[in-house]
Amino acid sequence: MNEAKDITSYLKHYGFFFPSAEIYQGLAKSWDCGPNSTELKRKLKDLWWKCFVTFQPYNVGSDSLILTHPRVLEASGHLKNFYDWLVECSNCQKRHRLDKLITAEEFTSFLAQENKQEFSISQNCPSCDKNKFTNPRQFNLLLSSDLQITNQEKKNLVYLRPETCQGIFINFSAIQISIRKKLPFGVGQIGKSFRNEITLHHGIFRTREFEQMELEFFCSLEEKEKWWEYWNQKAWNFLTSLLNDKNKAQKKALDQEELPHYAKKTTDLYFQYHFGPGELCSISDRGDYDLKNHSEKSGEKLKVEGITPHVIEVSFGVERLMLAILEDAYQEETIENSKGEKKREVLKLYPLLAPYFVAVIPWKKSLREKAKQIYQKLLTEINFSVIYEETDSIGKSYHYQDAIGTYYCLTVDDQTLNDETITVRERDSREQLRFSCQEQELSQFLNQKYQECWKKLIKI
Amino acid sequence: MNEAKDITSYLKHYGFFFPSAEIYQGLAKSWDCGPNSTELKRKLKDLWWKCFVTFQPYNVGSDSLILTHPRVLEASGHLKNFYDWLVECSNCQKRHRLDKLITAEEFTSFLAQENKQEFSISQNCPSCDKNKFTNPRQFNLLLSSDLQITNQEKKNLVYLRPETCQGIFINFSAIQISIRKKLPFGVGQIGKSFRNEITLHHGIFRTREFEQMELEFFCSLEEKEKWWEYWNQKAWNFLTSLLNDKNKAQKKALDQEELPHYAKKTTDLYFQYHFGPGELCSISDRGDYDLKNHSEKSGEKLKVEGITPHVIEVSFGVERLMLAILEDAYQEETIENSKGEKKREVLKLYPLLAPYFVAVIPWKKSLREKAKQIYQKLLTEINFSVIYEETDSIGKSYHYQDAIGTYYCLTVDDQTLNDETITVRERDSREQLRFSCQEQELSQFLNQKYQECWKKLIKI
Repeated sequence: MNEAKDITSYLKHYGFFFPSAEIYQGLAKSWDCGPNSTELKRKLKDLWWKCFVTFQPYNVGSDSLILTHPRVLEASGHLKNFYDWLVECSNCQKRHRLDKLITAEEFTSFLAQENKQEFSISQNCPSCDKNKFTNPRQFNLLLSSDLQITNQEKKNLVYLRPETCQGIFINFSAIQISIRKKLPFGVGQIGKSFRNEITLHHGIFRTREFEQMELEFFCSLEEKEKWWEYWNQKAWNFLTSLLNDKNKAQKKALDQEELPHYAKKTTDLYFQYHFGPGELCSISDRGDYDLKNHSEKSGEKLKVEGITPHVIEVSFGVERLMLAILEDAYQEETIENSKGEKKREVLKLYPLLAPYFVAVIPWKKSLREKAKQIYQKLLTEINFSVIYEETDSIGKSYHYQDAIGTYYCLTVDDQTLNDETITVRERDSREQLRFSCQEQELSQFLNQKYQECWKKLIKI
Repeated sequence: MNEAKDITSYLKHYGFFFPSAEIYQGLAKSWDCGPNSTELKRKLKDLWWKCFVTFQPYNVGSDSLILTHPRVLEASGHLKNFYDWLVECSNCQKRHRLDKLITAEEFTSFLAQENKQEFSISQNCPSCDKNKFTNPRQFNLLLSSDLQITNQEKKNLVYLRPETCQGIFINFSAIQISIRKKLPFGVGQIGKSFRNEITLHHGIFRTREFEQMELEFFCSLEEKEKWWEYWNQKAWNFLTSLLNDKNKAQKKALDQEELPHYAKKTTDLYFQYHFGPGELCSISDRGDYDLKNHSEKSGEKLKVEGITPHVIEVSFGVERLMLAILEDAYQEETIENSKGEKKREVLKLYPLLAPYFVAVIPWKKSLREKAKQIYQKLLTEINFSVIYEETDSIGKSYHYQDAIGTYYCLTVDDQTLNDETITVRERDSREQLRFSCQEQELSQFLNQKYQECWKKLIKI
């Protein structure tokens, strides 16, 4: 298994990610999506939605608010349990998450220890190599805001949700009644969550503001094992279908002491990033923990067919999945052309995830008008993204479109003026075919290829 | 023009909107999207994106963060100018926005008045009919959060953005360089914004957390008038294409004193809601206000081709547009059937916005297996949303699917078992046609209808 390359500067150069508010030296380690990753993200979320919601007979969608009432997070356990242990180096003032600084075994025995102030750390600070740490302190990861209207009145605290799923649990009965579903059924949701992480790193891998794609699947205890297998397989297939090198993906069943507070059982899916393995998806058996808790705390019955359902959760981090897909897609190749050997940088993205499925390119300046006409005609014949690309040379155009992962380059040349044909260059093989733009021959070919990619994914 | 009906309880009953955290008597006047409006919202945002970004040769997308550095909102003028004037009734404690309580003329003269404390209000309180108001106070609408890690360290304030467009302005150069565009070009963005409104009302019309679809179109001063006309027309066409009764939409050019602080010129698009006319889209000439401000405050050059471009903004409120579409789509009809007259409630949504384009329904219990097979086969042949529906009677199924706006109901009956044909009932006319499920006759018909709807919209 090859480790992926750190492509942060590449992604900035090609309009995928920009440091947020960079002109003001803004928020540290925060990232905005540029034009190309905006398209990639849209497409990734759309594929997930279709695979986990639209084309799943048992599932529906939800879209709940970010601003969350304190009672919701009190019942979910987040006010009490959602924290990290923080230590600071007294020499260089660098902060560390204790669980990342010491070994897993040491952290387990730390958690078991009664007087945590007395815990001694054997490691040195990774930044300054000294061993001068403060005592471990708990640090809650929730971000909050205040809805008070004037400062004469008392505070009116709300939280920014730390995970999207609570919005599904508290609406469980309203959803179930409105869609008239019996068990089993699932509710999917895509949206932003917020965590005030102590340490932010690896570009878009760990950030305060991030997006989640979550499915909460409700079933009876008897059927749970069957659905556990089903959703584990589905999540794994979804991830690996989007990668070129499937060996970069790994599964790991968590040990009992590694489980989050709500889970009976968890499988994490990992990707081999440039900095090492990183978790991008969790499949958890949440049991009846959430519905029981919310039912007790709210006094509302959260049951269907007389029982409190059990929950299988599939939770993907959008930015983490994007980073995995981009690192896997990035390839440097040596290709031969008439002028000898040349280096090519290319993003071999799953074709449906490419920011543009098709680019229309004039071979030279005098062909720009013709190319624009063909581009305009295509817009009326296809239902997916196409870009018109115009630079000084065809070589530069191919270079740029390869670099952002465009799947087909359509080139308008002198012959086009004579017979209305156009070359179609496939990104990965660089093979070229010639099609007529008339009678929808070209658009039928593109539509068919698009549908093939889609059908491959929907069958996973 | 008929006023629309208040359909809040209808929308709750049919799984469109639920009061947020209702089981905890949660945040007042906040709403989560249930399954059906989640689908509607997804589709609406997708249509807007295609009409304003993907199929616009000049435009690209952006997706910036919600958490915003204070310097951004200082430069944009929000820290200083983004407030409402608040008065409270000393008798009943009800709060009012001054500009909504008094007439537009009175408010203009209030703003011109030096000593605002001395302004006297002639109206009585709409709640208790007394005239006992507090002095007007300024109230800033920004919501903030604090990123401090431990309470030993100083506050680290961030804001939740009040509009999505600032993320585009501060990334202007990074975007322009990465996509190598000359003027004119536009940047579209869809995302959540937050405002701590004094008064929340009319269901999803005015809420603290809401979603915007914004386009910032950058052009030269010379071309501005042309693009102003173009985007005004486009926004109007987009809105009216999605309505049955186009007379419910209105345009209004703002007077000079009504303009927001950043605008040289603004047209608002209104819809005739059940509570009266409400604004759902603004088209603004923002001039070079934003780029110049950010350039001055940050010290970065925000120019292209040597000039600071002017900006035309098209800003839609997602929830407001959804509410307009739903109120317009809702119709009560009296229909005749074999048992006499019957009332029908139906959502005549633009077919591409219907939560489900197609429903597959078994005529009776013994046909469920056959219906499920046809549903599964359809999933592999079409690329849009289809639902399998199973209730005790076909009448109830039609009733429910009409109520949520499903465009085609496909009914499996006894004849289906003999010849593999199925009836297709169109929502608005209730006309029924019969198609074969074999050799893709059915899916070709559905695909063609779907494409027709799409092509109609893309040509606006």
